Amino acid sequence: MTTSDIIYLDHAAATPCRQEVVEVMLPYLSEKFYNPSSPYAPAVEIRREYEAAKHRIAMAIGAKPTDLTMTAGATESINLAMMAAHDGHVVTTTIEHAAVLASAKLYNHTFVEVSPKGLVAPESIAAALRPDTRLVSIGLANNEIGTIQPLRQIAEIIQRKRDQRLRDGNTTPLWLHTDASQGVGQIDINIARLGVDMLTLNAGKCYGPKQTALLWHRPDVQLHPIIVGGGQESSLRSGTENVAGVIGFAVALELAERERKDESRRLASLRDMLQHELTQAPPDMSVSGHSKKRLPGSLHVTIAGLDAERLVFALEARGVMVATGSACAANSGTRSHVLTALGMSDAQADGSLRMTLGRLNDEASIRRAAQIIREEVAREMERQR
Amino acid sequence: MTTSDIIYLDHAAATPCRQEVVEVMLPYLSEKFYNPSSPYAPAVEIRREYEAAKHRIAMAIGAKPTDLTMTAGATESINLAMMAAHDGHVVTTTIEHAAVLASAKLYNHTFVEVSPKGLVAPESIAAALRPDTRLVSIGLANNEIGTIQPLRQIAEIIQRKRDQRLRDGNTTPLWLHTDASQGVGQIDINIARLGVDMLTLNAGKCYGPKQTALLWHRPDVQLHPIIVGGGQESSLRSGTENVAGVIGFAVALELAERERKDESRRLASLRDMLQHELTQAPPDMSVSGHSKKRLPGSLHVTIAGLDAERLVFALEARGVMVATGSACAANSGTRSHVLTALGMSDAQADGSLRMTLGRLNDEASIRRAAQIIREEVAREMERQR
Repeated sequence: MTTSDIIYLDHAAATPCRQEVVEVMLPYLSEKFYNPSSPYAPAVEIRREYEAAKHRIAMAIGAKPTDLTMTAGATESINLAMMAAHDGHVVTTTIEHAAVLASAKLYNHTFVEVSPKGLVAPESIAAALRPDTRLVSIGLANNEIGTIQPLRQIAEIIQRKRDQRLRDGNTTPLWLHTDASQGVGQIDINIARLGVDMLTLNAGKCYGPKQTALLWHRPDVQLHPIIVGGGQESSLRSGTENVAGVIGFAVALELAERERKDESRRLASLRDMLQHELTQAPPDMSVSGHSKKRLPGSLHVTIAGLDAERLVFALEARGVMVATGSACAANSGTRSHVLTALGMSDAQADGSLRMTLGRLNDEASIRRAAQIIREEVAREMERQR
Repeated sequence: MTTSDIIYLDHAAATPCRQEVVEVMLPYLSEKFYNPSSPYAPAVEIRREYEAAKHRIAMAIGAKPTDLTMTAGATESINLAMMAAHDGHVVTTTIEHAAVLASAKLYNHTFVEVSPKGLVAPESIAAALRPDTRLVSIGLANNEIGTIQPLRQIAEIIQRKRDQRLRDGNTTPLWLHTDASQGVGQIDINIARLGVDMLTLNAGKCYGPKQTALLWHRPDVQLHPIIVGGGQESSLRSGTENVAGVIGFAVALELAERERKDESRRLASLRDMLQHELTQAPPDMSVSGHSKKRLPGSLHVTIAGLDAERLVFALEARGVMVATGSACAANSGTRSHVLTALGMSDAQADGSLRMTLGRLNDEASIRRAAQIIREEVAREMERQR
């Protein structure tokens, strides 16, 4: 099977670099290789280009470049954000990415439950806040079912709690972090409109390079580095700068923002078509996640009684690449904690498919994918009967 | 000035990717972009290629691939290695890289002094070991003056201390870590012959990509992750794998090892020529570091009374790129802690130049550089008179 035969429906797991991104990165692997901290002019020029890329990234999310810390991945950004919890308490939800759950467990924490549609109720966050809570971390859009969270309302609750602490003389700070990696190019990721204090983005999820991400933080957030040394990134993340990656990230993010409105409409239309084609006839497929507050490219379906892992291989053989859940969960061989948290039975979770659409899809490929998925689901159900 | 006019004498700060490295990386930025943790065949193939690259890297240093943790830089590797100190004491030296010094300071630590040539005396390490010392970290070759440390003898001392602890019933483990980043392609980095328990290597210093490094550890070393999440790299470093970078690193490291004997001879010969040309006539230049136990490509000179920072700009204007010290130190605008540790006066430290030769140099460029440096040093000295 050649690459062109593949129908890729797993954009939430990884995206290829756009051609524009590869082209802009290439010189920084070879002739523009200088260490941006070196003193001579060609290196100073690399420093300038690196800082210009950070500036462009900042502009794309409505931030100041000095408030960006470039990291090697969303997981590192999340771990760094979590350091703001310091000796305090963390509030997050049961459906967050493994990096949030694992790093929250290093602190006193509360995992808030979500609705069966995967929505976080702002009042449940309010109820979980303790006098020593320093950090709330909520993913902007869930990476399995695509549900978009009411971050703006959660931010307002946090602001009210801050005001109350001020009145009460409680000097514990309280910050809201969001991992918005899955939202880039599909929904608004402007920091002011989201109302957050920290934001994680991952180039590898928006047609930029892997191993490149950022944590934006409001200047009043007290971060503590997890990697110390030469003092790069305002001493928040030491190590020689990822020049090629950050310059590629800037291009990827700018293009994603520029094309966002058209692309999100296009993806929603393709996704709705796929959903319609899959659910119009037996076997019964139930759609997970919120029907409206959902990433345009996300479709998560459950067929009770199906062995979705087997289905993935049957589909792969016919060129359709889908996932049963997040790549991390697939790797650990465990059942999705997200689906369990939504109240699904083991049988439902094991019969679930995640399809995430993106730039590699068009109408013809989605129609073809729908047909193949229906055929293979029917065959699997027949086999299991 | 075009790239081809530049005489680059700062290979310790950064190296360009070799053409072979760029070529092997490129497909992994675009068509081979899959998440190696995804379940379908094209992603499983990426997993296989990623693991094969780790295998090749392991072979190049005489290790097992399962004992490698891939990281985003030597600084991260060093921070991870330091986590093995846990609640114990760390012994290191006054001339280590900023990442070692800064991370050692997070633990109980002893900074051992070195000789004026920058040599670590094994007996001074022995004397610094306490009953609660868990980690000794010594750079294989210093990144400013190029002195190569007697790691094998230090490893023997540590083994004797371990044996003694066994007899004494002291169950505190004791491990030796080395950052060998500056040695790749110039001296032996075989883990068994070095006798170390942990080893850091950086692709960005050996004609591989930036933001790509490793920590090798003996399986009995008790590491603790600094980045948690999806459980990649045997849960020692979560986050989507740096597929392109690691595959590029494998090629860079294999080529460095294959060409090491010839290249180190070539570099030593060029370095000796440069040293001879610079020191044969006034003004007096003293050469720092050990005359024999020194990286073949390293030359560090001091001209008392010279303003080396000004000289760097004068040389840059004539196409010769040199450093006054490490890029990290240059960035922070502080005087080199290495030179101070060697006992240099401020005037000596401020009159110091680091020249590190590598693949971008040939005989003609080194002869030309020697002439330019002599002329500009003379001019600077004249100006300051």
